[in-house]
Amino acid sequence: MNRSLTLGADVGGTYVKYALGDGDEPGRWTGEVPTDPASPAITFGRLAARVAELLPPDAGIGAAGLACAGIVDVRTGRLGRTPNLPGWEGADLAGLMGIAFPGAAIALANDVNAALAGEARFGAGRNGSDLVMLALGTGVGGAVMIEGRLLAGHRFGAGEIGHTILDVAGPPCNCGNRGCLEAYAGSRGLLADARRRAAAPDCSPGLRALVAERGDELTTRNLADLATASDSAAAALFREAGERLGQAVGNLLNVLDPDRVIIGGGVAAAGELLLGPCRETAARIVLCEAARSTPIVPAQLGSAAAAFGAAHLAAIHLAAEAPRERS
Amino acid sequence: MNRSLTLGADVGGTYVKYALGDGDEPGRWTGEVPTDPASPAITFGRLAARVAELLPPDAGIGAAGLACAGIVDVRTGRLGRTPNLPGWEGADLAGLMGIAFPGAAIALANDVNAALAGEARFGAGRNGSDLVMLALGTGVGGAVMIEGRLLAGHRFGAGEIGHTILDVAGPPCNCGNRGCLEAYAGSRGLLADARRRAAAPDCSPGLRALVAERGDELTTRNLADLATASDSAAAALFREAGERLGQAVGNLLNVLDPDRVIIGGGVAAAGELLLGPCRETAARIVLCEAARSTPIVPAQLGSAAAAFGAAHLAAIHLAAEAPRERS
Repeated sequence: MNRSLTLGADVGGTYVKYALGDGDEPGRWTGEVPTDPASPAITFGRLAARVAELLPPDAGIGAAGLACAGIVDVRTGRLGRTPNLPGWEGADLAGLMGIAFPGAAIALANDVNAALAGEARFGAGRNGSDLVMLALGTGVGGAVMIEGRLLAGHRFGAGEIGHTILDVAGPPCNCGNRGCLEAYAGSRGLLADARRRAAAPDCSPGLRALVAERGDELTTRNLADLATASDSAAAALFREAGERLGQAVGNLLNVLDPDRVIIGGGVAAAGELLLGPCRETAARIVLCEAARSTPIVPAQLGSAAAAFGAAHLAAIHLAAEAPRERS
Repeated sequence: MNRSLTLGADVGGTYVKYALGDGDEPGRWTGEVPTDPASPAITFGRLAARVAELLPPDAGIGAAGLACAGIVDVRTGRLGRTPNLPGWEGADLAGLMGIAFPGAAIALANDVNAALAGEARFGAGRNGSDLVMLALGTGVGGAVMIEGRLLAGHRFGAGEIGHTILDVAGPPCNCGNRGCLEAYAGSRGLLADARRRAAAPDCSPGLRALVAERGDELTTRNLADLATASDSAAAALFREAGERLGQAVGNLLNVLDPDRVIIGGGVAAAGELLLGPCRETAARIVLCEAARSTPIVPAQLGSAAAAFGAAHLAAIHLAAEAPRERS
C-alpha cells in the first residue's frame, strides 16, 4: 500500500473542507463533507468514506492533519472550548482521527494556526519564519509563528489577538469585554457599526438606503462595494476599522517584530479600504525604525488555507516520526 | 590561565554595573564603574582595569556579556538607536568588548532582554521557558522569551511592549504617540499624572501637599508611601496605572500565553498597589480560561538583573562555542 498521501481537513460548523495529495502537495483533490455537529466520529467516518472513493485501491493515507476552531490541546489531542461546535467539546480528536485513518501520522491544530501554517508553506508567508496572521471573519482569529514554529502557548491560549483590547470604552465584543479588535474588525462588529452609522442623522443617503434595503442580509461585501463607489459614510466605516486594525498590528509589531503580517478572512476582501489605513496607523505606532515598513499583506489561499496547512503540519509530523520509527 | 570566569556588564547612562564570578555563577564580585558617554572603548577599558584588580594574577575572563539599552543588533554586534547614550550609537560593541577582554566569548543583548535572561536563570523566572518581562522605569521596557530563547525580532525591534497603545486618545508619550503603556506605567507618566491630579479641584489635600512640597524631587516612591497611608487620590493614581498595566498584560497573555509575567523596574516597588489591579484587569481580558490565572509576579533581582543576565548569556555562548572549537 502506498502511504505517501497526505490529508488535511478543516472542521467548520457546517462543513469539513479537505485537501488531499501526494506528500507535502495536498492540492490534488479538494472538497467538503458535512459536519455532524454532535459527533466527530461520524464526521471523520464521512471524511474517510470520501477519501476511500477518491483514492486508487492500493493507496492509503500516510499523514492526516485536522484543523479545528477553539482551544486545541496539541499535547493530549483533545478539544477544549469551541463556541461554534459545542457538541465536540472534550472530544479526543487525535484518537478518533487515528480510528478513521488507521496507521496515519495524525497532526492537530487550531484552525487559525493551521491557516497560518498553510499561508507560510504555500501562500503569503512563503520564505518567512516569523509571521503573524489575523483572520477577519465573523470574529477575529490570530496566529503567531516564531522561527518556523506555531506558537500554541503555555495553556494553548496563544494567538487570541482578536481579543486584545484597543479601547476599554469601545464597542461591546461577543466575549463580554469592550473595545477588542474583534469588535472593530470582525464582520459582526463592522455590521453593527454600519447600522449605528445608518441611524445617525448625518449619515450618507447611500449607507442609510443600503442598511434599510438589505436588513439582516447585509454583508461586509455590500459595504465594501458602497465604499468603493465613493460613499463617504461607508468609506469612513472601513477607514476607522482599518485604523483600529492598524493599532492592533502596530502593537504586535512592537511586541514581536515579525517578518511580515498576513491579513485573511472574509472581511479582508475589502482590500485596500482596510489595509491602507491599517498600514499607515501601524507605521506610526512602531518604535523600531527598521520595523516601520514591515509588510502587511493579504492572505493568498482564502478559505483553503487551514486544510492545506493541516496537511502540511501532518506531513511535517510524519517526517519527524519516520527517523524515530526506523531506529 | 584559568578562563572559567564569567563577566556580565550592564551599561547605563551614568554607570556600568558588573557581576563577575565562576562559570554560570556571576555573583562573586559586583560593583560599578563610570560610563564614558562619548566612548565605549574608554568605558570598556575602565571595566577591564577594574576586573584586573579583582582577579587573581593567573585568572582570565572566559566569557563576557554586555547589556545595553537601545536597538542591539546581535548579528553584527553593533548598537543602533539608543536615546540615553547617543554618543554610543553605531559603535561596534562586540568588537570593542573583544579588545577589552581578549580571548573571551562575547555576548550582547538589549538591557531588558538581559534582565529577563537574569530573572529566568536566577530570579522570578526560574524553571520557566516562556516568559514576558516588563521593566517599569522612567520609560517602560519589555522582553519576551519563548522556549527558553530571547525574542530579538526580525529587525531587532521586538519587546517594545512599553509602546503598545492602550488608548489612542490617552496621555502623550515620549515617543510622540498617545496612550502608550509607558505613558501610564513609567515613572515619567505617573509623575505627570500625579501633577495633573494635584491641580484638580477635587484632589485630596495629601496629594496636593506632597506635589507642592516635593516639586521636581517628587518620586513614585513618595506617591506609593502616600497611597499606602490611605490617601484616596494617590491610591486612585496607582489603581488606574495598575489597570492600564493589566490591560497591556492581558493583551500579551491573549497573544503569547506565557508561563508567567515578571514586573520589574523602580515603579514596580509600589508592589500590590500596582499588581493587584493589574492582575484583576488582566484576568478579565484573557479569553482562554486556563490562562486567566497566569502568574504575574514581581522581579527578584532588582537593578542587578541585566548584569547577571548578560553574564548568563555569555556563559551560554561560551558553552555553545566550546564544542565547535574542539572539533
